[in-house]
Amino acid sequence: MNSAPAGGTHVLPVRVYYEDTDAGGVVYHSNYLKYCERGRTEFLRALGIEQSRFVDMGFVVRRMVCEFLKPARLDDLLAVRTVYRESGGARLELFQDVRRGDEVLFEAEVTVALIDQRGRPRRFPAELAWKMKFLSESGS
Amino acid sequence: MNSAPAGGTHVLPVRVYYEDTDAGGVVYHSNYLKYCERGRTEFLRALGIEQSRFVDMGFVVRRMVCEFLKPARLDDLLAVRTVYRESGGARLELFQDVRRGDEVLFEAEVTVALIDQRGRPRRFPAELAWKMKFLSESGS
Amino acid sequence: MNSAPAGGTHVLPVRVYYEDTDAGGVVYHSNYLKYCERGRTEFLRALGIEQSRFVDMGFVVRRMVCEFLKPARLDDLLAVRTVYRESGGARLELFQDVRRGDEVLFEAEVTVALIDQRGRPRRFPAELAWKMKFLSESGS
Amino acid sequence: MNSAPAGGTHVLPVRVYYEDTDAGGVVYHSNYLKYCERGRTEFLRALGIEQSRFVDMGFVVRRMVCEFLKPARLDDLLAVRTVYRESGGARLELFQDVRRGDEVLFEAEVTVALIDQRGRPRRFPAELAWKMKFLSESGS
Repeated sequence: MNSAPAGGTHVLPVRVYYEDTDAGGVVYHSNYLKYCERGRTEFLRALGIEQSRFVDMGFVVRRMVCEFLKPARLDDLLAVRTVYRESGGARLELFQDVRRGDEVLFEAEVTVALIDQRGRPRRFPAELAWKMKFLSESGS
Repeated sequence: MNSAPAGGTHVLPVRVYYEDTDAGGVVYHSNYLKYCERGRTEFLRALGIEQSRFVDMGFVVRRMVCEFLKPARLDDLLAVRTVYRESGGARLELFQDVRRGDEVLFEAEVTVALIDQRGRPRRFPAELAWKMKFLSESGS
Repeated sequence: MNSAPAGGTHVLPVRVYYEDTDAGGVVYHSNYLKYCERGRTEFLRALGIEQSRFVDMGFVVRRMVCEFLKPARLDDLLAVRTVYRESGGARLELFQDVRRGDEVLFEAEVTVALIDQRGRPRRFPAELAWKMKFLSESGS
Repeated sequence: MNSAPAGGTHVLPVRVYYEDTDAGGVVYHSNYLKYCERGRTEFLRALGIEQSRFVDMGFVVRRMVCEFLKPARLDDLLAVRTVYRESGGARLELFQDVRRGDEVLFEAEVTVALIDQRGRPRRFPAELAWKMKFLSESGS
């Protein structure tokens, strides 16, 4: 299900089930954020980063600029793309979109932060910083 | 929003929003379980039990027998009824239903257990046992 | 539960239940969008607009700029504020935030559009346009 | 992702994401019902039945007897098993469970009904009845 994020880009396939839709007959808007979170999780996993092993720190979303362009529907097979933009200190910037074939349905600029157990920003540990540096040099 | 569970019965009003519905135009079936969990939370709060203050224990659902009788729809104002049945040891038995006016849309027999931090059954603390005993004697 | 949106501002109280939280111990980020959608629904209802009665049109979210400032937790009682900004043609601009007492936990700039059954932008019907005009003149 | 339901049994892999968990650190109980619904959808798809193409009918859940046995956690890779039991008229009986390796975490007896647009039971169309008959004869 996972491929290494070549050139800083990762793609996750996502199927639309009844749970994702609403009475308008389309995917409920906030569920694109769930798809993106799944995408970021698999993007990190492809880098060897398993969030469930974090003991005294965690990633949180700080900011999302979301464009809802076209609706997805029941049974659609979507692709969630996660693109590395930049990182520094305790901050990671990503671009994500959700596509159905060639159509872009949703786009977001995402800022994620690493925090400690008290919720304070925490500099990336060396291994994480190293992996981000690798992505920034491989280009996107 | 909360009234004391007179005679062991508690009622919580719930409004249906877009997030609750699916492409079938009705409330997605598993959301009745969410409504019931809100109902149990308010039932316990009305007894003076605030789950977020539990430090080394927690309630978990062990068993639910669910009857999905009629569909709820967008904007419906529902009533979630929680009825105390019996309790003992680490176990609490409840009956819950979801109504729209006189119509019963959903019914469930629910078994809840108290567990410690390692997930093992834990006898009710004295105060909790006392409150349950009071409910059992007040009838339902 | 509802008061008329005086000066174009509407406030909806929301309780945090287990369903809203995640393994980080806080409200899952996309659920603030659900709270905001509940807030917009009640904002519209306070204006006499019942979305479930729309036959051949519907509101959809086009854009959200979201700032996740501080985490909400289990059992928190939150206030979702919806503030009218401007509207025109098929577009409605709102500001929304989620507060716990004096603390602002979440903020969003929201663009909503009215669409017809084929998903095309649709000018506000006269009654809707009139209500929006009233809000714009009452100030926010 | 899908294999034909050999001997009336279908298995769907499901990954646990943050969206599925709650402040107790485990999968929120009603989400096992979502996993089962995904499993039923893929079970039907493996039989060549695409629910999104249904025009004037749909499947609804009538009854679920749910046993919540052990908790699933963030990043777990689960298997949702769907086993055909019997069918007749407008009714389909299934057994479903959710496993992590050899451990059974959740079990359910599920009754699903086919209904028409007015919500009345509807006999299976010939093709559907034929497929169910095939499953009943292939044993489970």
